[in-house]
Amino acid sequence: MDTKQNILYHARCLFNEQGAERVSIREIGRAAGISHGNLRYHYPGKAHLLEALFQECFDKSSAFTAGLLQSDINFAQLLRGTWQEAKGFWEYRFLLIDLISLCRNYPEVQRGFQQMYQQREQEILLIFRYLAARKWIHPAPYSGYYELVIQNFLMAVDYGLSHVLVKYPDTPQEVLLRKYHLMWYAPLIGCLTVEGLDLLKEVLDLETGRVKT
Amino acid sequence: MDTKQNILYHARCLFNEQGAERVSIREIGRAAGISHGNLRYHYPGKAHLLEALFQECFDKSSAFTAGLLQSDINFAQLLRGTWQEAKGFWEYRFLLIDLISLCRNYPEVQRGFQQMYQQREQEILLIFRYLAARKWIHPAPYSGYYELVIQNFLMAVDYGLSHVLVKYPDTPQEVLLRKYHLMWYAPLIGCLTVEGLDLLKEVLDLETGRVKT
Repeated sequence: MDTKQNILYHARCLFNEQGAERVSIREIGRAAGISHGNLRYHYPGKAHLLEALFQECFDKSSAFTAGLLQSDINFAQLLRGTWQEAKGFWEYRFLLIDLISLCRNYPEVQRGFQQMYQQREQEILLIFRYLAARKWIHPAPYSGYYELVIQNFLMAVDYGLSHVLVKYPDTPQEVLLRKYHLMWYAPLIGCLTVEGLDLLKEVLDLETGRVKT
Repeated sequence: MDTKQNILYHARCLFNEQGAERVSIREIGRAAGISHGNLRYHYPGKAHLLEALFQECFDKSSAFTAGLLQSDINFAQLLRGTWQEAKGFWEYRFLLIDLISLCRNYPEVQRGFQQMYQQREQEILLIFRYLAARKWIHPAPYSGYYELVIQNFLMAVDYGLSHVLVKYPDTPQEVLLRKYHLMWYAPLIGCLTVEGLDLLKEVLDLETGRVKT
């Protein structure tokens, strides 16, 4: 790990444990074992750390989406991929749990989320069109419905973790993540044809949210 | 307005403007025009104010749901009612925007949300059964699907406002609230039969989210 990676790793761990607002730059330096001056040289302030971590998380997620779009999409690949994503987001959970306060206090983070929404909406619409072409989902009941479903999906990705954390306290992390991930699919499941649902069921346990490997 | 109502009114306004964490009990006393001692007599601490405001918001919403369940549900009544609710939640928006930090810092508020979820799940399931009996929504594609949709609905109610605030900055309040309210219906729309969708369209402009009166 180079210095920057080392700093980001420790910043992420501390942000996840305590919430981004409560962690000072000095604490991050101590955890990373580098001087305050050295840390400041790489990341002059908390805003820079937050932007870098948002970008890191976004880039990982973008790589997954790009890979998906370059192939013949099937439910096994889709579900296993989004399950990996859900587990990956857990590693950046402070971004989701503190989303609204981070956006309020760091305009660059808010702009990051906005750009991400725009990009993902386009990409997921392509996935929906593919699923519709394979007759795995019904045609949109009206023009614009898929767009609404996609917005709901993006909301579930960003706030579903907060929701399950409040609703199911003292729940093992694996169970919590399954509930979180299942929530992403709530409106999509309603769009599935009989064939689509059968294919989905081969990979996803609809009761527990477990993704079969 | 009696003293307690007066205090709650000013607390709610300040919490909405600045976020609950940033407002002190003293500021609330000043805004309400009463002494610090008098305020403390009614509400010993911020936790008591937050619990009372949560209860106030919950009671209003419960009255609406109870009224709905006592009648023959139709889409006009449902949509106009939930639209009023969405506007009502705007008056308590600090509870939604700061949901996760309030739940973290005030266990009673978290318990309040948990109880609310339990109660609403039961009530909304009754509404879904009614809509299914009228053949306005399709039967659940698998046992448990309505429950997932309802959980998504409750998530959209609680986090949809944060989502649209981040996604659509500098947007007029009315437009923002329509987007927020439309989000509640994302997975339900996918469950509608042709007849159900036609009836819904009579009351709801699916493009803008405007509820016709």
